[in-house]
Amino acid sequence: MELMIDLNSDLGESLGAWRMGDDAAMLDIVSSANVACGFHAGDPAGVLDTLRCAAARGVAVGAHVAYRDLLGFGRRAMDVESRDLAADVIYQIGALQGLATAAGTRVRYVKPHGALYNTIAHDERQARDVIAAIGALDSTLTLVALAGSPLIGWARAEGLRVVGEAFADRAYTAAGALVSRRAPGAVLHDADQIAERMLRWLREGALQAADGGAVRVQAQSICVHGDSPGAVAIARRLRERLTQAGVRIAPFAEAAMKP
Amino acid sequence: MELMIDLNSDLGESLGAWRMGDDAAMLDIVSSANVACGFHAGDPAGVLDTLRCAAARGVAVGAHVAYRDLLGFGRRAMDVESRDLAADVIYQIGALQGLATAAGTRVRYVKPHGALYNTIAHDERQARDVIAAIGALDSTLTLVALAGSPLIGWARAEGLRVVGEAFADRAYTAAGALVSRRAPGAVLHDADQIAERMLRWLREGALQAADGGAVRVQAQSICVHGDSPGAVAIARRLRERLTQAGVRIAPFAEAAMKP
Amino acid sequence: MELMIDLNSDLGESLGAWRMGDDAAMLDIVSSANVACGFHAGDPAGVLDTLRCAAARGVAVGAHVAYRDLLGFGRRAMDVESRDLAADVIYQIGALQGLATAAGTRVRYVKPHGALYNTIAHDERQARDVIAAIGALDSTLTLVALAGSPLIGWARAEGLRVVGEAFADRAYTAAGALVSRRAPGAVLHDADQIAERMLRWLREGALQAADGGAVRVQAQSICVHGDSPGAVAIARRLRERLTQAGVRIAPFAEAAMKP
Amino acid sequence: MELMIDLNSDLGESLGAWRMGDDAAMLDIVSSANVACGFHAGDPAGVLDTLRCAAARGVAVGAHVAYRDLLGFGRRAMDVESRDLAADVIYQIGALQGLATAAGTRVRYVKPHGALYNTIAHDERQARDVIAAIGALDSTLTLVALAGSPLIGWARAEGLRVVGEAFADRAYTAAGALVSRRAPGAVLHDADQIAERMLRWLREGALQAADGGAVRVQAQSICVHGDSPGAVAIARRLRERLTQAGVRIAPFAEAAMKP
Repeated sequence: MELMIDLNSDLGESLGAWRMGDDAAMLDIVSSANVACGFHAGDPAGVLDTLRCAAARGVAVGAHVAYRDLLGFGRRAMDVESRDLAADVIYQIGALQGLATAAGTRVRYVKPHGALYNTIAHDERQARDVIAAIGALDSTLTLVALAGSPLIGWARAEGLRVVGEAFADRAYTAAGALVSRRAPGAVLHDADQIAERMLRWLREGALQAADGGAVRVQAQSICVHGDSPGAVAIARRLRERLTQAGVRIAPFAEAAMKP
Repeated sequence: MELMIDLNSDLGESLGAWRMGDDAAMLDIVSSANVACGFHAGDPAGVLDTLRCAAARGVAVGAHVAYRDLLGFGRRAMDVESRDLAADVIYQIGALQGLATAAGTRVRYVKPHGALYNTIAHDERQARDVIAAIGALDSTLTLVALAGSPLIGWARAEGLRVVGEAFADRAYTAAGALVSRRAPGAVLHDADQIAERMLRWLREGALQAADGGAVRVQAQSICVHGDSPGAVAIARRLRERLTQAGVRIAPFAEAAMKP
Repeated sequence: MELMIDLNSDLGESLGAWRMGDDAAMLDIVSSANVACGFHAGDPAGVLDTLRCAAARGVAVGAHVAYRDLLGFGRRAMDVESRDLAADVIYQIGALQGLATAAGTRVRYVKPHGALYNTIAHDERQARDVIAAIGALDSTLTLVALAGSPLIGWARAEGLRVVGEAFADRAYTAAGALVSRRAPGAVLHDADQIAERMLRWLREGALQAADGGAVRVQAQSICVHGDSPGAVAIARRLRERLTQAGVRIAPFAEAAMKP
Repeated sequence: MELMIDLNSDLGESLGAWRMGDDAAMLDIVSSANVACGFHAGDPAGVLDTLRCAAARGVAVGAHVAYRDLLGFGRRAMDVESRDLAADVIYQIGALQGLATAAGTRVRYVKPHGALYNTIAHDERQARDVIAAIGALDSTLTLVALAGSPLIGWARAEGLRVVGEAFADRAYTAAGALVSRRAPGAVLHDADQIAERMLRWLREGALQAADGGAVRVQAQSICVHGDSPGAVAIARRLRERLTQAGVRIAPFAEAAMKP
């Protein structure tokens, strides 16, 4: 049986005169693009360019929604009230849908960014606000969430499709959580090691945890980074290794992408 | 034959803790709501409230797109490059479409705001950017434009539906242009006089110009204001007078609103 | 011996086209104006008007620094890193100092706003960031802090002058903390009752707590609100009652205001 | 007699997660740093770092004030009303003064950025707003202006000190104006040619104009760029060539920098 996986990355994160990442390079590597919606990054014209590029390569597009926090790049935890949070999420998805239409593609999924991603993985109040927002706008949108997080259950209970994601370059605890970035060894840097690790996970369903044991991680997408030349090289090596081993790289949203 | 006209007003212009206008009152008066999209005014949660209110009353919704200029309320002329202007317009319409969907309604038309409105009435470059943006997103959207302006021709030539609008409380020159706000008598304040003036215009197709002569104004919508209690009273009086005279107040986009 | 107290209020909170509060009325009532610095509210031109008004009436000016959060009016708790938080505070005070100089006055004190105020009352990390910022810019600036909060000790230990403040319209617990806004009776509304309560506190040093007992509150300033006509009336009544009873209303920073 | 000139560059233009330019490299080259104030670029923490670096190297600091336009990087012409424009300029200078104090230096001059720079070179209304703002805040601040522009006369007539600046990498018309960026040959790219050209100008007071003739340019500062590795190399070569020829590179504001 053919193995298949989705690779996703955060794109469209330039802002006017400021460049970030190499979207063109990453769109040759990933199958899903989490595109910034203007709240943590992304000016409309730059986002439109990224969307056109994604459309031309058949890369699936997701809305990378965030707190309204350009100066903090959406990485600051914020205590946003439910009515604001839900409306902010709808606004961002809608804006990206508009740009996607103009680019000849459409938004298939929603992946919260940064502090919002981390918060709703475990904070039920904010999680429910985001879930409600997606449901109110388009309940066929898939939510991409941290593998193993409570968010997955909350979203499925409300009828949303959810895809869990694993992080290619992060160490995992024996319980299946990400090792804190502050801990030594939390972030992996060796491209070959990362590629082998992901390939084994795809074949066996388990990763080697930080304590040396095996931990099962349920995910249909792997997150890779493109914010530095080193990160792009790691992502490219991962794609090469997986492809070489016969794994097909394709959007988890593939079925939905058929006309 | 029954006379019919659309009344439109700028709504959704509060911003977080700051209130502006009385949207609930105005939504009982107008048939079309130009709803702020977040660039000159309008936070997503407040806009969502306004959209729900509009949906509940059968008021048609338009995207009140603007320059990105919260501090200047979109009233500052800005020399925005074409790629930015077009993408900014798509972004705003898309965002409002998202919120409108969540509110159970949808965006029927686009009315540029403030300095953008004034600029594209006559500036062909920026006008074509806005026209292209609407066409790229949804060419069934109607553009609301200053009656008699060159914009109308440019937009129709590109296949857009265009509706001209007249201003209830503004004086017109013999050539059909608005008298500059800086000139004496540019703005009318007497509710009864305004109502009679509009009624006569509906019946005869012409307004009394500032020089005393008659000037033909071709419009399918009348813009009324709601940013002060006095403005609301003028709008309400206009609606009453028109209705009393047998004029039907209905969205110009009415046909499109049928399911 | 003459009793003397400072009355302070949050001013300069309009934003461009959006009005908030009646600064002119409040500047006839208070002796200290906490003026917005542009992060939660306040456009430079509006703030400049408020500062000129304050200068003309001899009202002391403080910098009402906040998180960068216009849409949430600075009321959202935010996890801002130390280097950003300290620099943001310096930036805001500096900007207000510039405007104050142009208005013929100067900034005497710093009062954090909203979520920042509440957070640093108890969160030592963010408190130390704000204290360090003030010290780096001008260690003669006084910090206005919640009466009884740990912040007072932290700031004094770093050599800052600190003034505690009491809230005229808030209920206090027996431990001297504010009763949560969500609890019944947390906010007082009767102008006469509020005035008598504050007068007794000035004479006796103690307030009646929510449980009926007496609680000592150490403060040299009373915070009053001006964000509604009712609030202005309460503040005016308080000033009248105190003045009538022989209490002198004057800036806590009075000595510093002498040329 | 010793020749002496100031080299200035635009710095502090990063924004949160987005990097721009190599401030550390440029601060080894220039004698004056035009530091962003947050309206077109520059987050407070990043600006503070740049200011500390400038202070450590004895580089003079100027306020690089701009229109409020992060997304357009201050390059969009904007029709800002006088009361807003003046207050915005004061606000920005004040904010930078605060950060400069915390960094152990102070603001010596003001150089408007981008569209504001270009507009006030010739637009008298906006020019007078900026001049009035500087005068209201600190009339000892020097204004840096386009050599030969009407702005210089307007500012001097109001009692401001003004320094004209030349652009190292730009072609000049026979009338002493910059050749439009859209014209061929408007921007020079050869580091050696640029260095020789500036050296000859310093010695002879005239530049070779685009038409081959000589044009006198009166300036006490040369603007160099640092927004690309190539630009940094050009600036470095210019400094080397001038120094080698015995020209002293020092802030035009040098006298003012003595304690």
